[in-house]
Amino acid sequence: MAQLRIALAQTNPTVGDLTANADRLVAWTRDAAERGAHLVVFTEMFLTGYPVEDLVLRTSFVDASIRLLEDVARRLEREGLGELPVVVGYVDRAGLAPRTGQPKGAPLDAAALLHKGEVVTRTAKHHLPNYGVFDEYRYFVRGDRLPVIRLHGVDVAIAVCEDLWQDGGPVSVVGQAGAGLLVVPNASPYEKEKDDVRLELCARRAREAGCALVYVNQVGGQDELVFDGDSIVVDGSGELLARAGQFKEELLVADLDLPASQAETGTFPYDAGDGTTITVERLVLSQDPVEPYAPEPARVAERLDPCAEVYSALVLAVRDYVAKNGFESVILALSGGIDSALTATIAADAIGPSRVHVVLMPSRYSSDHSLTDAEELVRRQGVRSRIVPIAEIVNAYEKEIDLSGLAAENIQARVRGMILMGLSNEHGHLVLTTGNKSELATGYSTLYGDSAGGFAPIKDVPKTMVWELSRWRNAHRDPFFLMEAERPIPENSITKEPSAELRPGQRDTDSLPPYEVLDRLLDDYVEKDMGSRELIAAGHDPELVTRVIRLVDVAEYKRRQYPPGPKITPKNFGRDRRLPITNRWRESTT
Amino acid sequence: MAQLRIALAQTNPTVGDLTANADRLVAWTRDAAERGAHLVVFTEMFLTGYPVEDLVLRTSFVDASIRLLEDVARRLEREGLGELPVVVGYVDRAGLAPRTGQPKGAPLDAAALLHKGEVVTRTAKHHLPNYGVFDEYRYFVRGDRLPVIRLHGVDVAIAVCEDLWQDGGPVSVVGQAGAGLLVVPNASPYEKEKDDVRLELCARRAREAGCALVYVNQVGGQDELVFDGDSIVVDGSGELLARAGQFKEELLVADLDLPASQAETGTFPYDAGDGTTITVERLVLSQDPVEPYAPEPARVAERLDPCAEVYSALVLAVRDYVAKNGFESVILALSGGIDSALTATIAADAIGPSRVHVVLMPSRYSSDHSLTDAEELVRRQGVRSRIVPIAEIVNAYEKEIDLSGLAAENIQARVRGMILMGLSNEHGHLVLTTGNKSELATGYSTLYGDSAGGFAPIKDVPKTMVWELSRWRNAHRDPFFLMEAERPIPENSITKEPSAELRPGQRDTDSLPPYEVLDRLLDDYVEKDMGSRELIAAGHDPELVTRVIRLVDVAEYKRRQYPPGPKITPKNFGRDRRLPITNRWRESTT
Repeated sequence: MAQLRIALAQTNPTVGDLTANADRLVAWTRDAAERGAHLVVFTEMFLTGYPVEDLVLRTSFVDASIRLLEDVARRLEREGLGELPVVVGYVDRAGLAPRTGQPKGAPLDAAALLHKGEVVTRTAKHHLPNYGVFDEYRYFVRGDRLPVIRLHGVDVAIAVCEDLWQDGGPVSVVGQAGAGLLVVPNASPYEKEKDDVRLELCARRAREAGCALVYVNQVGGQDELVFDGDSIVVDGSGELLARAGQFKEELLVADLDLPASQAETGTFPYDAGDGTTITVERLVLSQDPVEPYAPEPARVAERLDPCAEVYSALVLAVRDYVAKNGFESVILALSGGIDSALTATIAADAIGPSRVHVVLMPSRYSSDHSLTDAEELVRRQGVRSRIVPIAEIVNAYEKEIDLSGLAAENIQARVRGMILMGLSNEHGHLVLTTGNKSELATGYSTLYGDSAGGFAPIKDVPKTMVWELSRWRNAHRDPFFLMEAERPIPENSITKEPSAELRPGQRDTDSLPPYEVLDRLLDDYVEKDMGSRELIAAGHDPELVTRVIRLVDVAEYKRRQYPPGPKITPKNFGRDRRLPITNRWRESTT
Repeated sequence: MAQLRIALAQTNPTVGDLTANADRLVAWTRDAAERGAHLVVFTEMFLTGYPVEDLVLRTSFVDASIRLLEDVARRLEREGLGELPVVVGYVDRAGLAPRTGQPKGAPLDAAALLHKGEVVTRTAKHHLPNYGVFDEYRYFVRGDRLPVIRLHGVDVAIAVCEDLWQDGGPVSVVGQAGAGLLVVPNASPYEKEKDDVRLELCARRAREAGCALVYVNQVGGQDELVFDGDSIVVDGSGELLARAGQFKEELLVADLDLPASQAETGTFPYDAGDGTTITVERLVLSQDPVEPYAPEPARVAERLDPCAEVYSALVLAVRDYVAKNGFESVILALSGGIDSALTATIAADAIGPSRVHVVLMPSRYSSDHSLTDAEELVRRQGVRSRIVPIAEIVNAYEKEIDLSGLAAENIQARVRGMILMGLSNEHGHLVLTTGNKSELATGYSTLYGDSAGGFAPIKDVPKTMVWELSRWRNAHRDPFFLMEAERPIPENSITKEPSAELRPGQRDTDSLPPYEVLDRLLDDYVEKDMGSRELIAAGHDPELVTRVIRLVDVAEYKRRQYPPGPKITPKNFGRDRRLPITNRWRESTT
């Protein structure tokens, strides 16, 4: 057996900021070297950030990625870090002749090993995910190699992300080809209640391959995606050896005892079990094992409980969206209700209360507690506030055009939206919208009104979970949250009956069923894709099924004009739910 | 040789309206029977409409499609049409076990042949396009069959759409397997300046297969897509025999002289040249040739000239978006400028001037000619108009919040947008936005202002083409256009200098280069994906390249909240240009 100390760089790259990502790679490699690592592994497409979508179809972007990889290899050597091998993801190209339907330039979701100033080997993802949030058949062509690099006597195989999830392909030949360790750079987004599928998967693949496995995952917010880290090391029997925390950057170091190899070098074709051939390329970097050393105890981070997990995802999403897009501050409407209270709290935890601006915009229909609850939140959190009454502006509209019913209600919501946008344009704040998933799913929201803005922190959070997260946050603090207030959310905002206050005495239950009933139905219809018959068979009220399905299908149309927001479930009524607008199919009538 | 009369049903299905599509199939089959056809061919996924996107992942939807196919077969028989074989596209399922990454329910983009009350054979598209507007790896699994049906002695092969465009697969084995005719149902969207690629492709595939080819294409608007028809019949040497018109429904009938066959029936595997095996299934419906008859002269429609083509696409897109979404009328802001003038004209041609409502919304900065030019258009076209001054509403905002510069300009645009939305909510009109592609690409547009609305007729039309189309329309009439006015667009709207009129003396050229220069640069940057070095090498001014690229990249962020509009080029700054919002890559700095 041979010892190896592996460093897992669970990092937060910025999409498109190639220079900053390269600087980070060098800094983290230096840390890994100082901690005595023999190999450091970065995440999938770390140099470019992930996902880059249409950028990958630009020749200049792919050129820059390839050039950067070679520059970084030389720079590591120049800065005295060349002896430490680095595995890192980037974008490369396959050099195929163009053909109809092939992504322009034949890009590869690639990974390379850097050593002594050189790019020693390059490989690329074989299985291209094209489901859920992934569209990779649009962007990449597939790789067909499995590099196996001897490092201090240990054969280290490299595969990328999705290749771990699918049967067949490079990971399936690791066992036959023989390796002492499989390292896998990933960019795997967070999903609520995923159980522990990643650990189960890593354990299973390690057992199949008969070797230890190092799974390194990205962390950070990227538009609607939140990457949670949760990097993992398992041994060849699938036993968990080390695990990084969630939602935070971390250099996880693990000492492994691995089999030494004398296998012949060269290239060898293998039947990959999916109709393709994978070429195994065996190289030797160093044959001699490292001097025996005393291993450090491995860190195995505990996983967060469900509320902490979701709340942390939302905070990280807002923090990164603000910072990576170059905003200094956010602005939102504070109504005194629970949705805007939770949104303000997430924002204050994400970027600190002094950078959160709230606007109280009472109308003729606002109740007393709306203003007092909002003011109480401002007092507790220390966010910046101002009051802008909207009655006179609404009157000015009503003098020019006659509006009644819903049209009149919408004008109030839109005046508020336009005030926020005006203040955003004047002062450069990012507008946060405060709509929750139950409202957005059913269309209980005003287009260009409360839905107007740049980022929607709780768009994927059902109303029942809005209350749950608010109670949880009042009971928990963490240094990850930048606001230090005790119980930041006024109890009355949590306990009072929800109302949009767009007409006298209005209550959400005038238009919607109770949220506990609605949220269960929405989960079955939207997330589980159940049809109306199945929903009724599952015990939902038939009349309610018809009504809610109709609301959801109609709301789909309005939501086309939506801002992005963090996605924490498989379908958040946003980009994963791609329905034609012009469409006469009605699930409610089947 | 054996005669056959083929009817090509170039039709306009409605996505999701299964019942209406089935009714239409029966009616058109009756017409084909009355015209003596021996085979009628409908378009790809005609029964469900195309594209159906996420609907295909709903079990209830696929169930309904399969049930409908069988119902329609029986109904044709019941109504005395069972003797006439019908080829039609629908959605089926492959019956595969679920696995990660496979579309839920394993749907097929299928086609079937109906005869004597039965579904005689079923097949499915093999090549799944996943580029441009297509996302079919997300939605379908691939077919692996080629049915060849003997009809009056002629072997008729059936393949679906993309299988014609790609090498390998079912179409590649037609020649080896032997067939007298290849029929191909399609849903192929219109694209400006596509040249005559479809005819070239049909001719090439017919020569490769050594048989005649019938290409039947969908017509109609579907959200951003416009299907233009242009169905084609070529003989085995690739010679054009018949062709349907563009943008209109048409039952095209063609008499063909085809080789008779005695080939053995059964199933036969063929190497499809793309790593897969295609199973050819040979069946006999009828061996005896039809009684000799005198063929009718074939119709070969002339193709429209470039302006007629684009203008017809826009009219059809608006007409179908309004009708298929159940709107009765549209509303738009008429400024006196050319963009809103052309948009109103397209709308009046699409649904008739009496259903077009225009709102003149003068502000303190509006020039005299704005109102007089708008009023002149109202007079010429007979659209419904009203005037709503915005000065007092803008004043009401300015009393509550201090805004300057761009923020103050935006408020004016947003007040107009909110008035349109209010009138839309009150009266049920669809709001049309009037922004052109040059503006939208560079962000010369106000979010929630002039960009607020439900459909954007000219979002993919550059400003220089806006002028060109306006002049063209003033010189041309056609029964396809529902407005009968002579020269519907006031000359002054075409010739005057463009201005947003949001501040005194404002001109577009204060912010943008001249449109002739801008549009050429945008075409090279966006459509042709040229990088900054290539743009400069192509002769664009270096300083302008940097400035325009920056505008386009920043505007990408704002456009996330866009309404759909007809797409007439490969990239219309809409869904095909998928860039991460959170992204530090700047082409302008490379």
